Amino acid sequence: MQPRPTTFLEPYRLQQLLGVPLVLALESLQHTGSFKYRAAHNVVANVPQSHILAASSGNFGQAIALASKLQGKRCTVVMPETSAKVKIDAVREYGAEADLIDTKKIQREERQSQLAEELGDVYLASAYDDPLVIAGNASLGEEIAASGLGIQTVVCPVGGGGLASGLIQGLRGAAEVVAAEPAMANDAARSLREGRIVRHQVEPLTVADGARTISLGQHNWAILQHGLKAIVEVEEEEIREAVRLLFSLANVKSEPTGALSLAAVIRDRHRLQGRRVCCVVSGGNVDPGVYAEILGS
Amino acid sequence: MQPRPTTFLEPYRLQQLLGVPLVLALESLQHTGSFKYRAAHNVVANVPQSHILAASSGNFGQAIALASKLQGKRCTVVMPETSAKVKIDAVREYGAEADLIDTKKIQREERQSQLAEELGDVYLASAYDDPLVIAGNASLGEEIAASGLGIQTVVCPVGGGGLASGLIQGLRGAAEVVAAEPAMANDAARSLREGRIVRHQVEPLTVADGARTISLGQHNWAILQHGLKAIVEVEEEEIREAVRLLFSLANVKSEPTGALSLAAVIRDRHRLQGRRVCCVVSGGNVDPGVYAEILGS
Repeated sequence: MQPRPTTFLEPYRLQQLLGVPLVLALESLQHTGSFKYRAAHNVVANVPQSHILAASSGNFGQAIALASKLQGKRCTVVMPETSAKVKIDAVREYGAEADLIDTKKIQREERQSQLAEELGDVYLASAYDDPLVIAGNASLGEEIAASGLGIQTVVCPVGGGGLASGLIQGLRGAAEVVAAEPAMANDAARSLREGRIVRHQVEPLTVADGARTISLGQHNWAILQHGLKAIVEVEEEEIREAVRLLFSLANVKSEPTGALSLAAVIRDRHRLQGRRVCCVVSGGNVDPGVYAEILGS
Repeated sequence: MQPRPTTFLEPYRLQQLLGVPLVLALESLQHTGSFKYRAAHNVVANVPQSHILAASSGNFGQAIALASKLQGKRCTVVMPETSAKVKIDAVREYGAEADLIDTKKIQREERQSQLAEELGDVYLASAYDDPLVIAGNASLGEEIAASGLGIQTVVCPVGGGGLASGLIQGLRGAAEVVAAEPAMANDAARSLREGRIVRHQVEPLTVADGARTISLGQHNWAILQHGLKAIVEVEEEEIREAVRLLFSLANVKSEPTGALSLAAVIRDRHRLQGRRVCCVVSGGNVDPGVYAEILGS
């Protein structure tokens, strides 16, 4: 199953509110509920191994599970045993084996290497730092460039950097790319300022769990260092407000990471005035309890 | 602004769960957040009057407001003063005048006639019982027939009957139409059984507020009486569960009325086994408090 072409939405009330001719690219409706399926599909299709091994408790785990299953490959996903039950269930439902670990006893990377040795000819799939991931995500940039919507600026969340670098690659200059990052997890913004990859000591616990990565990937950094127009840092409450606005004014269910780009546009709307902006809603997978809590606050 | 072509989604996890090759038609992403914009656009475009008058506290009010504004016509929407503030705000934001009434003192229809007399040359727009409404909604049937998805059964909610009759008209036999109705507001199902329009004495307070109509419209009945394949009656808790499933397994924000069709498919899945079914998610406008409560229960 090929990645689903993105759904473009021109949300009238959000446009009125912001004074920006905004377009949303709803990757929340992508297979497995996030843009990660683009990368996963491309990885599985292009590696010779018949067994894929990944470490992810998030969207990449689900995406690589389904992409493997549909292409007739085995898949094992290393996940902390404390992962939300809905996430473990989803990975299993998509046909992968969930390898649950106690992260107090063993790190994900360590367990991944251990398994790789045991299993033999497997492909260790990175959720973001892999040219095949970037090339998979580039398909979204190509779709935006070919959309006929006249997009001038694409805003997307940045965690490991796979989506932003894929967009830059796929757009080929047709539009500038602005990344949106939680202020409390701003390693990418600091990396750009310092001209080198800055790492967090521990995973920053932002509500945008897709942006909790320790640092940008090497392959992504090579593209982002000179390819990004800017990074906008947004506060936690702005992310939550963007989730609510997508709900109320566009009927879009977004996960917090998916709402980062809208939060950045709201913060930066004066600079974006009159520009044709596309916000990538990168995914929609969010625990119902977390979502209800955000709506209620 | 023409109606937005519907967004088709083939939700893998829902398909697996139900064993039905299900397709969703997301009218929740239609302009103003529901299929009603199709009808409203068609009404405003085809009546000579430059002032449109409607009585609706729901999706039709918002749809007719925006359709009027964008076509340069005046619009007045009669609403109970007890309507949810978000609904009154939306109608005003879309450029219409909200005429708030105390329903203990005056009925909506009475106030509408009063206003019509005061204002002179206005068009009294019905939310469902009007050939222009049916013809507007027919565009969705045409899109489903032309989708290339091989749809054999279309399932849609029924309230006044405008959507179901529009679908039958637009599909022209390309697929059968099954209506989904709340069991506690089953006037359409009883009408079909009795061969005449059955009316409720008072609005039944189903959670699917779009199906709280007193009875089918005359124009709709003429089409539905012989054109509907079946009506499936669903319980309140089944509607709420369908809202949750759309959230969890398809990343779709639906209002309760919009989830009626999925609830009917779940109830009737054994009869639908193997059939290519399209569920119309008719709208997504739901109060955040109501939605959070449904997710949490």
